[in-house]
Amino acid sequence: MLGEIKGLNEECGIFGVYGHPQAAHMTYYGLHALQHRGQEGAGVVVSDGYDLKQSKGQGLVTEVLDEEELMTLSGHAAIGHVRYSTAGGKTFENIQPLFFRSSTGSLALAHNGNLVNATKLRQELEETGSIFQTTSDTEVIAHLIKRAGRTPIIDRIKQALNELEGAYAIVMLDEKRLIAALDPRGMRPLSLSKVGSGYAIASETCAFDVVGAEYIREIHPGELLVIDDQGIQVDSFSQPKDRSICTMEYVYFARPDSNVDHNNIHSVRKRLGKKLAEVSPVEADVVTGVPDSSISAAIGFAEQSGIPYELGLIKNRYVGRTFIQPSQALRERGVQMKLSAVKKIVEGKRVVMVDDSIVRGTTSRRIVNMLKEAGAKEVHVRISSPPITHPCFYGIDTSNSGELIAANHSIEEIREMIGADTLTYLPVDAMVEAVDRNDTSPNCGHCLACFTGKYPTDLYEDSLPPHEKEQLIGAKS
Amino acid sequence: MLGEIKGLNEECGIFGVYGHPQAAHMTYYGLHALQHRGQEGAGVVVSDGYDLKQSKGQGLVTEVLDEEELMTLSGHAAIGHVRYSTAGGKTFENIQPLFFRSSTGSLALAHNGNLVNATKLRQELEETGSIFQTTSDTEVIAHLIKRAGRTPIIDRIKQALNELEGAYAIVMLDEKRLIAALDPRGMRPLSLSKVGSGYAIASETCAFDVVGAEYIREIHPGELLVIDDQGIQVDSFSQPKDRSICTMEYVYFARPDSNVDHNNIHSVRKRLGKKLAEVSPVEADVVTGVPDSSISAAIGFAEQSGIPYELGLIKNRYVGRTFIQPSQALRERGVQMKLSAVKKIVEGKRVVMVDDSIVRGTTSRRIVNMLKEAGAKEVHVRISSPPITHPCFYGIDTSNSGELIAANHSIEEIREMIGADTLTYLPVDAMVEAVDRNDTSPNCGHCLACFTGKYPTDLYEDSLPPHEKEQLIGAKS
Amino acid sequence: MLGEIKGLNEECGIFGVYGHPQAAHMTYYGLHALQHRGQEGAGVVVSDGYDLKQSKGQGLVTEVLDEEELMTLSGHAAIGHVRYSTAGGKTFENIQPLFFRSSTGSLALAHNGNLVNATKLRQELEETGSIFQTTSDTEVIAHLIKRAGRTPIIDRIKQALNELEGAYAIVMLDEKRLIAALDPRGMRPLSLSKVGSGYAIASETCAFDVVGAEYIREIHPGELLVIDDQGIQVDSFSQPKDRSICTMEYVYFARPDSNVDHNNIHSVRKRLGKKLAEVSPVEADVVTGVPDSSISAAIGFAEQSGIPYELGLIKNRYVGRTFIQPSQALRERGVQMKLSAVKKIVEGKRVVMVDDSIVRGTTSRRIVNMLKEAGAKEVHVRISSPPITHPCFYGIDTSNSGELIAANHSIEEIREMIGADTLTYLPVDAMVEAVDRNDTSPNCGHCLACFTGKYPTDLYEDSLPPHEKEQLIGAKS
Amino acid sequence: MLGEIKGLNEECGIFGVYGHPQAAHMTYYGLHALQHRGQEGAGVVVSDGYDLKQSKGQGLVTEVLDEEELMTLSGHAAIGHVRYSTAGGKTFENIQPLFFRSSTGSLALAHNGNLVNATKLRQELEETGSIFQTTSDTEVIAHLIKRAGRTPIIDRIKQALNELEGAYAIVMLDEKRLIAALDPRGMRPLSLSKVGSGYAIASETCAFDVVGAEYIREIHPGELLVIDDQGIQVDSFSQPKDRSICTMEYVYFARPDSNVDHNNIHSVRKRLGKKLAEVSPVEADVVTGVPDSSISAAIGFAEQSGIPYELGLIKNRYVGRTFIQPSQALRERGVQMKLSAVKKIVEGKRVVMVDDSIVRGTTSRRIVNMLKEAGAKEVHVRISSPPITHPCFYGIDTSNSGELIAANHSIEEIREMIGADTLTYLPVDAMVEAVDRNDTSPNCGHCLACFTGKYPTDLYEDSLPPHEKEQLIGAKS
Repeated sequence: MLGEIKGLNEECGIFGVYGHPQAAHMTYYGLHALQHRGQEGAGVVVSDGYDLKQSKGQGLVTEVLDEEELMTLSGHAAIGHVRYSTAGGKTFENIQPLFFRSSTGSLALAHNGNLVNATKLRQELEETGSIFQTTSDTEVIAHLIKRAGRTPIIDRIKQALNELEGAYAIVMLDEKRLIAALDPRGMRPLSLSKVGSGYAIASETCAFDVVGAEYIREIHPGELLVIDDQGIQVDSFSQPKDRSICTMEYVYFARPDSNVDHNNIHSVRKRLGKKLAEVSPVEADVVTGVPDSSISAAIGFAEQSGIPYELGLIKNRYVGRTFIQPSQALRERGVQMKLSAVKKIVEGKRVVMVDDSIVRGTTSRRIVNMLKEAGAKEVHVRISSPPITHPCFYGIDTSNSGELIAANHSIEEIREMIGADTLTYLPVDAMVEAVDRNDTSPNCGHCLACFTGKYPTDLYEDSLPPHEKEQLIGAKS
Repeated sequence: MLGEIKGLNEECGIFGVYGHPQAAHMTYYGLHALQHRGQEGAGVVVSDGYDLKQSKGQGLVTEVLDEEELMTLSGHAAIGHVRYSTAGGKTFENIQPLFFRSSTGSLALAHNGNLVNATKLRQELEETGSIFQTTSDTEVIAHLIKRAGRTPIIDRIKQALNELEGAYAIVMLDEKRLIAALDPRGMRPLSLSKVGSGYAIASETCAFDVVGAEYIREIHPGELLVIDDQGIQVDSFSQPKDRSICTMEYVYFARPDSNVDHNNIHSVRKRLGKKLAEVSPVEADVVTGVPDSSISAAIGFAEQSGIPYELGLIKNRYVGRTFIQPSQALRERGVQMKLSAVKKIVEGKRVVMVDDSIVRGTTSRRIVNMLKEAGAKEVHVRISSPPITHPCFYGIDTSNSGELIAANHSIEEIREMIGADTLTYLPVDAMVEAVDRNDTSPNCGHCLACFTGKYPTDLYEDSLPPHEKEQLIGAKS
Repeated sequence: MLGEIKGLNEECGIFGVYGHPQAAHMTYYGLHALQHRGQEGAGVVVSDGYDLKQSKGQGLVTEVLDEEELMTLSGHAAIGHVRYSTAGGKTFENIQPLFFRSSTGSLALAHNGNLVNATKLRQELEETGSIFQTTSDTEVIAHLIKRAGRTPIIDRIKQALNELEGAYAIVMLDEKRLIAALDPRGMRPLSLSKVGSGYAIASETCAFDVVGAEYIREIHPGELLVIDDQGIQVDSFSQPKDRSICTMEYVYFARPDSNVDHNNIHSVRKRLGKKLAEVSPVEADVVTGVPDSSISAAIGFAEQSGIPYELGLIKNRYVGRTFIQPSQALRERGVQMKLSAVKKIVEGKRVVMVDDSIVRGTTSRRIVNMLKEAGAKEVHVRISSPPITHPCFYGIDTSNSGELIAANHSIEEIREMIGADTLTYLPVDAMVEAVDRNDTSPNCGHCLACFTGKYPTDLYEDSLPPHEKEQLIGAKS
Repeated sequence: MLGEIKGLNEECGIFGVYGHPQAAHMTYYGLHALQHRGQEGAGVVVSDGYDLKQSKGQGLVTEVLDEEELMTLSGHAAIGHVRYSTAGGKTFENIQPLFFRSSTGSLALAHNGNLVNATKLRQELEETGSIFQTTSDTEVIAHLIKRAGRTPIIDRIKQALNELEGAYAIVMLDEKRLIAALDPRGMRPLSLSKVGSGYAIASETCAFDVVGAEYIREIHPGELLVIDDQGIQVDSFSQPKDRSICTMEYVYFARPDSNVDHNNIHSVRKRLGKKLAEVSPVEADVVTGVPDSSISAAIGFAEQSGIPYELGLIKNRYVGRTFIQPSQALRERGVQMKLSAVKKIVEGKRVVMVDDSIVRGTTSRRIVNMLKEAGAKEVHVRISSPPITHPCFYGIDTSNSGELIAANHSIEEIREMIGADTLTYLPVDAMVEAVDRNDTSPNCGHCLACFTGKYPTDLYEDSLPPHEKEQLIGAKS
């Protein structure tokens, strides 16, 4: 039961805009640019100054919203959300933004991140009469805001946010205001931009390029922005704590054309690849990257090493929800899934295969095997981040610790398990240096918990899935 | 704002089953039989004894649930709901059953009817911290159950139900139990049946015929049934008050093959038609009914009067969501909508057009006009119920009083407005006699409020839409 | 192979309109009214005077055509088709109208009926180089028109039609003309109407009522109508032969609000029911009809016999393509399919069950059984047509002779097989009298082949499915 | 009229397999890999040795075929087709494979390429009685095969192919055989592979990698392969003429992981980019490619020039059929379409923008403008092919000559029109050298008609769209 109530580790994207005559359309395009952050559900809530209207559903933004639907969502302010979840079935309940109505007005919330004290807060709320219709952390936040009493909404929001522990980037909308907030450690990315005479907020800056918005700056940790008719008011609900932005956003999750904290992601990844070529050189004939997220690192590796970058692996673009997966029988006869090795490129070659990470090892084994079957003489796996030894409790779905191959095996064991000729990872300090060249101290600014087990926040046993409690105790000791 | 929060007048159908290996499938077929009670949304929640699973969405039962979806809903107990609403857009929030989770278990509710003190209750709940995600009365009921504290669930349900005023037939499901309750006046129909070794509950008995369930009896006013592993426990949460079952269920809403309070609806309607022929005879050539709900009354009228029953009006069966409505230009050129007059039948004839009711008069005017354009020499409109002079606050969408043609016009004025040669209604006492031959007192057993303005419950001004408050004052005085 | 190439017995509906600014929309509404004649596929071809455009697909008219699609089909002339077929899969090829292009212009054809010499014609065409993309008779007609050479199109059409043997009602469209033709025996219904300054053609007159068209007259056997800018030219391609209109159109197939040969179908069916009550009276408590096609006959039976007409059987309206059929297990537990018996109505009663026909007997057995299980004391089956002893080769899917219960069993045997207490059919002469009171000779005007085995045309062994050849020989001898 | 009958310039992909127990599934995966060659329609025809079954429709392979559909397509041999077309509406008629039935057997055909004498052949066929249901060249081929008389099918096919002039790669399927043929100049790519004990044919080798097939060799010009129970028979229908494979397949059309004539496409494109850097060096800060087809060339340019390759332009992957295009108003406010410039990368930089070709110049202008608005200081456009000065009549949609910017303007004029700081193209001989390092003669092996106007075949005025006839005369003179 607990497991089900526990907020899922959700990777999400959020967007908000205020002061644009077609706010819902802008949110559509913004969410579209953030689609890689979540493909399971999408939603928009719009305000025309008097009333909120919403539209949400399962699937891609383009599946959930059509022109007819967007036309009904008139208004000058909007927030939106794209959501990733492993939950199946028609569970609309968790699709965000969540939308609450009361006799004094409505409030919509969209949230990216994960609270570590959600279960504790939920239990306290239940004891005093709250009832829950979703399993998402976002509903906890809404209840806290409601419980904060009859004081002005901004005060109630501040009070509620101060009860949260964990990672959260939030946009909220009521009839009159767009509100944005970021947790005091700034664990998730969130940026501000100017669009016409109004403003837009987004998880990643790629959404700004798409809607023609001009980047202003990152939202600061602990900051609360309130945007309304009067313009933007910069406020804070908490003293900022040590910045701990998620490193995996750079390594794997963000889009290569986004900038996080002034760093272009593609360039960061190229530097990770170059650094990898420096610290783990290898004699080889071709460099190839695992599409899509490792292409930039592979190009960097090739540039640094002088080994030509070639398309040894290819991803079929048209794979989607309706794709018929090959049966076991067909796979045994050689039918490939999303990725194929390109025989002509790898046949008889010593191949450097650059990837961004190894989680459970099964995918890596499959790709190495595919390259070998296509005739690769040697496969040298180069990972542009350190071994993932600890689970993430802040919203990246790095699986639980029992499944993390590097939590339980040495690098040499992993090499053998995935069938590579050599395997190296990028050390933590080299990664941090490549991510941000101006600041090389190991944990100043970046959350490295999944590599080091040093979690920047307290952890609450009640809020963890059962299989993580044991791991947690290990992490603490 | 208030208007939006006010629970909509919802006509709905509910179904529940306990003790059947394919409870979700049974609910699917049951809801299918109740589809005429609501075509805008449908949902099912199923229990396997440990956990609840749900599936719901907009549209017909057959659109919301497919075989694949049903297969995932394994369990031996289920409840379901079909819903009518005029609200557009993808507003999943109000689709029932509503589903609430807590650390101590889950609860699902489905509700047919309308509370008259919903706004008052909602405001009280909001003041003590409840937040609402829907505009439906059902969420109010759930909050009341939650607020009733930590006592056993059945006690909390009883306490909550006693705070409600209005019409409500409810089915509830938790991990272990199916619960059914009917308001103390029994304003909505709700019946119990045996199916195999288990039980089924439904808004109408037609759902029993379809799933092979054997009718046992009506649920009594104020009754609370709890069905679990131990069998059925009959309990009550309130002393029954004067029975006030909705007369419009007989006249218009229920399916002709259903029985309400042991009366077959088709037979009731034939008696209404016969009575109408007795009290308002007319010289004519053919009798025709407005499809579908008035066919039975028309056959009764023909049988009593000796005037042959013919198909003067026809409804196109295939009309549905995707039907392209004719443009104004095409309608002006004679393209008909759902109904057509059959020229061959009515040309040169004196036509008796039997209908079950006149609400705003616009549809009647359109049909009379259609008959005349098709060549009818005379059109004699016979209505198998009295003039609707007051709005319904208990769940039948008879529109607000400003739009009720009979609230503002004499019968002669209405006749002229709709263009009929003669127009008569069935008097209240004749209607009551036809509905139930054994009991002819005007308000013993039947709610006649929409005809008489005598509302069986108190009315709460705060819970009424603004345009009804004035009307209410008139009704009270 | 032969069987597959043989044109299927297709029940279809056709519509055409000339001289209306929104011809495609009109065809949409017209086909919609004819939807009962075929639900498997639909198509429209429209002309704007210069070019033809088409749209067609599988499913109902409302599924195939949406507003967006219709908007692209601008033009003042159009033809359309709805199609019934048991063939599964995405076989678009047979969906009509068929559309042929050439350097000198295009031609579209839609056809209702069945040719008995199609296979012979097809073989002759193939031998001289024609290739076929469909299995439909319509493509044969198109090839014959093409082969008729370079003479004017109307002459070529006449020449082609004279090679056909069987039942055919055809509408054709080229850039400049709407053409309609009916086989020389008038075996299928086809009517002409005036709509504004133009004309409409339809399989049934119900399509005229819907689009506001004014019925003019039936198309005569052997007639060829050409409608263009100059108005309507009435021509004929053949001497009319003895009229042999399909009797099953009256008994079962046409819509009750249609008129065939000036006879309203509902009224015909009421007369059939009355006649049945005269010739086969029975002591009983209620009369019920098998929905939908037998309701009119049941009302007639009740009117004549004085036994009240009640809703003992009910059809669930929402049954459609997406309906999940109950599994065998559920059916064994009593879950009903499309039809349910109404327990309250039939319990303890002697029931007259009126149906229009018995084909294989399985449905009748199921319904009788359903009534008995619902408590009917006696079930008296009354069929408003004679026993079907011979297969139809002209387009009504009465199954092959091996499956026709009345081809192989006496009435008493059938009664026993379906479990009825009594069973009577309407004799041929009584049926003919009821269909057309002015003309009582057995085969003047009506095709009675399925009842009598007297086929109005020659039959071609090569064109019959193998299992019918033997039967055919019997029929001839 | 002529224009409509004229076969459209179709870019397509074809696939065939013989001797695999799940031939339809294999074709599904094969077509999926070829999806970039056509996204408007897809189809499969399968043979089980006795009968052919087909499934086809509009849209992507994954939209047209679902698991349920594939399951019905059992058989050991299949052909399939993906199709590009600008034609809108539900025009199923041109979707391939085309499927013809006759009393002696069926034949299905799928075709990639374009015939230059199609109109002439079509007119001849029409004059002798053929009727056409599509506008595709493929139907012409089928008629020619039919007309070739009653000789064995292989002889008839050879005779028919010899009447064709133009580019064609064809797969055909009858009950017993898979047949593949390539035009005598080998203008379109077509390859053969081994899969288990059977064979597969595909337009590109990427389809082989995906289904686990082992590449054997290219199909030779003028070759006819017949694959059946007896294995593979290599035959030819024509003497091969000078090889003239389409150069645009290398430059733009084929997938980077495919090999054409033993050349890996990604590697060819990298060489094109390197050569471009050699012949047109430039001082700049970053190199960026126009996604997707120019990325390889951009990486080559960066590798050769030492200027870093960065993501200055990004394509949104989720763009599809249902994407809501931004309105003009939104575009004026800066909302981008499929491509966005990445401000962070290009701001203040001198950018080399590598693209594969310029057709009309409008897209190039838009991208250059986008880069400048994002802050690029200079934009140097480098095109990895020569100016396109002549239309293609062999199946690549390079638009008509009136719209080809390079047909009407000098390079300097084009530079100015697209707003670039410098613009260079790759010369023809440099391109040919990069494509095939072993063979540098200008027209030995490659069709260079769109760059040079030297068409390898005769052209037929009647088969050209009107606006090309004038151009043609120019080309001839």
